[in-house]
Amino acid sequence: MTTTIVDAKSYKRLLQELEQHRKQHERLKLLFNVTRNITRELTIDRLLLRIMDEVKNVLNCDRCSVFIMDEENQELWAQVAHGGDEIRFPSHLGIAGYVATTGETLNIPDAYADHRFNPNIDKQTGYRTRNILTIPMRNKMRNIIGVFQALNKFGGPFTRDDEELLDAISAISAGQIENAQLYEEQKKTFDSFIETLATTIDARDPMTAGHSKRIAMYSDEIAQIVKLTDAEREVLRTAALLHDYGKIAVREAVLTKKGRLTPEEFEHIQSHPEFTRRILRKINFSRKLKDVPEIAGAHHEKIDGTGYPQGLRDKEIPKLSKILAVCDVFDALTSQRPYRDRMSFFKVLHIINRGAGTDFDDFYVAALKKIRLDRILLILEDEHKENLRPGDLRFLSHFTLTDLMFVYAVDEPTPEQQKLVRVFTKYYVQNYEEVR
Amino acid sequence: MTTTIVDAKSYKRLLQELEQHRKQHERLKLLFNVTRNITRELTIDRLLLRIMDEVKNVLNCDRCSVFIMDEENQELWAQVAHGGDEIRFPSHLGIAGYVATTGETLNIPDAYADHRFNPNIDKQTGYRTRNILTIPMRNKMRNIIGVFQALNKFGGPFTRDDEELLDAISAISAGQIENAQLYEEQKKTFDSFIETLATTIDARDPMTAGHSKRIAMYSDEIAQIVKLTDAEREVLRTAALLHDYGKIAVREAVLTKKGRLTPEEFEHIQSHPEFTRRILRKINFSRKLKDVPEIAGAHHEKIDGTGYPQGLRDKEIPKLSKILAVCDVFDALTSQRPYRDRMSFFKVLHIINRGAGTDFDDFYVAALKKIRLDRILLILEDEHKENLRPGDLRFLSHFTLTDLMFVYAVDEPTPEQQKLVRVFTKYYVQNYEEVR
Repeated sequence: MTTTIVDAKSYKRLLQELEQHRKQHERLKLLFNVTRNITRELTIDRLLLRIMDEVKNVLNCDRCSVFIMDEENQELWAQVAHGGDEIRFPSHLGIAGYVATTGETLNIPDAYADHRFNPNIDKQTGYRTRNILTIPMRNKMRNIIGVFQALNKFGGPFTRDDEELLDAISAISAGQIENAQLYEEQKKTFDSFIETLATTIDARDPMTAGHSKRIAMYSDEIAQIVKLTDAEREVLRTAALLHDYGKIAVREAVLTKKGRLTPEEFEHIQSHPEFTRRILRKINFSRKLKDVPEIAGAHHEKIDGTGYPQGLRDKEIPKLSKILAVCDVFDALTSQRPYRDRMSFFKVLHIINRGAGTDFDDFYVAALKKIRLDRILLILEDEHKENLRPGDLRFLSHFTLTDLMFVYAVDEPTPEQQKLVRVFTKYYVQNYEEVR
Repeated sequence: MTTTIVDAKSYKRLLQELEQHRKQHERLKLLFNVTRNITRELTIDRLLLRIMDEVKNVLNCDRCSVFIMDEENQELWAQVAHGGDEIRFPSHLGIAGYVATTGETLNIPDAYADHRFNPNIDKQTGYRTRNILTIPMRNKMRNIIGVFQALNKFGGPFTRDDEELLDAISAISAGQIENAQLYEEQKKTFDSFIETLATTIDARDPMTAGHSKRIAMYSDEIAQIVKLTDAEREVLRTAALLHDYGKIAVREAVLTKKGRLTPEEFEHIQSHPEFTRRILRKINFSRKLKDVPEIAGAHHEKIDGTGYPQGLRDKEIPKLSKILAVCDVFDALTSQRPYRDRMSFFKVLHIINRGAGTDFDDFYVAALKKIRLDRILLILEDEHKENLRPGDLRFLSHFTLTDLMFVYAVDEPTPEQQKLVRVFTKYYVQNYEEVR
């Protein structure tokens, strides 16, 4: 065996260096995986939860929070769990606020020995903070856009290596978070634009004020009941808000005429779904929304082929249009007219039922009838929600439209059934006589 | 000196391992930097150029292309330079097509010795390909969404290490590219939505068909002449397209009345900018577009305070509204009416000039007059561009509105000046008498 004589100190150093490289290699590989996982998310909620999860794993600690700077309100906010819950506080408070303000990294090995730590939070939550690592998050212009905070490293305080690793993750996250914010802002702008457009179009005819927004809400209730995907729900919501866009091309005199329409005027009004389709087709909808024009344009088609504009039959009608169709009529029948009461709810349900299988698809009529009564009232009274008493809503949440129909059908309703009708009717019937 | 005796082979292996770790460490650090730079871009063009640059640096090669799969058209496309130029080809062709179809990595040390290489491209471009590394790019569902291709590694063919590195970059890029695509699709949908809305609102009044789109185009010409930022241009364009949104609330009978308006009707029409502002304020505009409602709502204000709805004066009027104001009047004066000729251009310029300093801001009137005549015609004839002869447009591109005014002012125009008036007038004057 050939041997070599080396200086013991150098040899030891060599082994140490190798060990260090191995470790760093491991960490860089970890970092790469974190990065890959982070870059896959574009919605801010999911992105933040993902980042927090990844940091917990990589730093081997109990908790991680990402606080985002809200410049406008001078606040820091953080996502606390799935579902959009968040906490907010003034951006100069606490350790996170200190780091956001000064840009310093704070690695605190013993939280309770540090005067900047506020033990009240632990008191409130029952959590026991031991050590904390808090670093600023900077964007490419080097502005602080948030703060990373890791809590309770397992087996002792955070190391210098942890600081570096979190710093690297923070650098990657910053760009990704800004991208997600841009994306969400853009989406919000688009959504509120569509909603505003729907409202302005409805407003041309006082009879239909708020109609499109309510259809969107009823449709979404059905969507949840029949378990549509999130993607379908978004298409349905957009089509619902825009289904009457074509009315912009209907002459005002016809749209708002009080008396009976002439056959020519009737035909003119009936052209609106076709206008909707034609106008919407000019919009360069994204792939996920590409069917909106067809769906919105078919909201007056009927199962038996007697609808318009195309006279499509059952299977030819897009399923989302079938949902719009039943919600459209339901809203029309239950809508308030200026100083005139709503149609009796018994009659509304009767008309909808009678149309099942000819006008409307049975399946979606059944789904409509499964909507909870508290949801119905919240939609009906969308602009006066403050009048609805929480106790009444809680009570009504145990019943659906079907339950109400059943009560109408029995000869001798129980006290609870009587209460159901009484509470619902209290809000449904406006009693304009009394008001005036 | 303490010494240690070690097995020579192990020692050598130790040194090799250390060297390898050092190298890998360097590469991982490079990779991290690439990642950080890539995650900062959200617009697809800039992202792709950035990725290609980074890969060239990291792999030490002469070129890099990222081919993106266009599923709908079964094509691969790539950005070739700043400014949006792209190449496209069927997604099964060439080495990129082979990799996109099979999912294999191809590391070709000598291009001309490989039968899959198509030397025609080199022949066309004059480039000399030596070695090529081509790898598929997969998204998180492991679908191939594109292909990375690196050309001509300096100092020999690509190594196994290069393959791994490019693979890692590709994994990161895939997520980022998909995000950028989503963002751009969403932006396109929003933009075309606004444009469609503008068109539908203009269409209610045949007198103003296409008006909003033209104002957006004139405004953008001025924006470029006075060197507004890209962000300002986007705000201006949005405000221009939406400036007449409030007309949706103006009664049709008044909007389309042929004869003279009563004072009450005139006041009603004058309420439209205020409606515009109120409606647009309901939209949850993103930060970058937040001033759109104010800007759009002030397009009828005048420098001397005699405008409406607020009677703002010079410095109180947003500068982008001042641009809208001058373009609004310019378009109104030069618009075709159904079967009626446009106002003489001499008269138009006279009216605009007369209003400078009282109605309009001098500075933007001056900018308007700097617009090239070919651009003016392209906007005026937006819907009949095919009638404009390329030679005439080229000739007109050497002159501005100011030049045309100058010709009107001289007593004896030169032959070129005469040609200028003749060519411009040929398109500007519609000669409906002759047509009918």
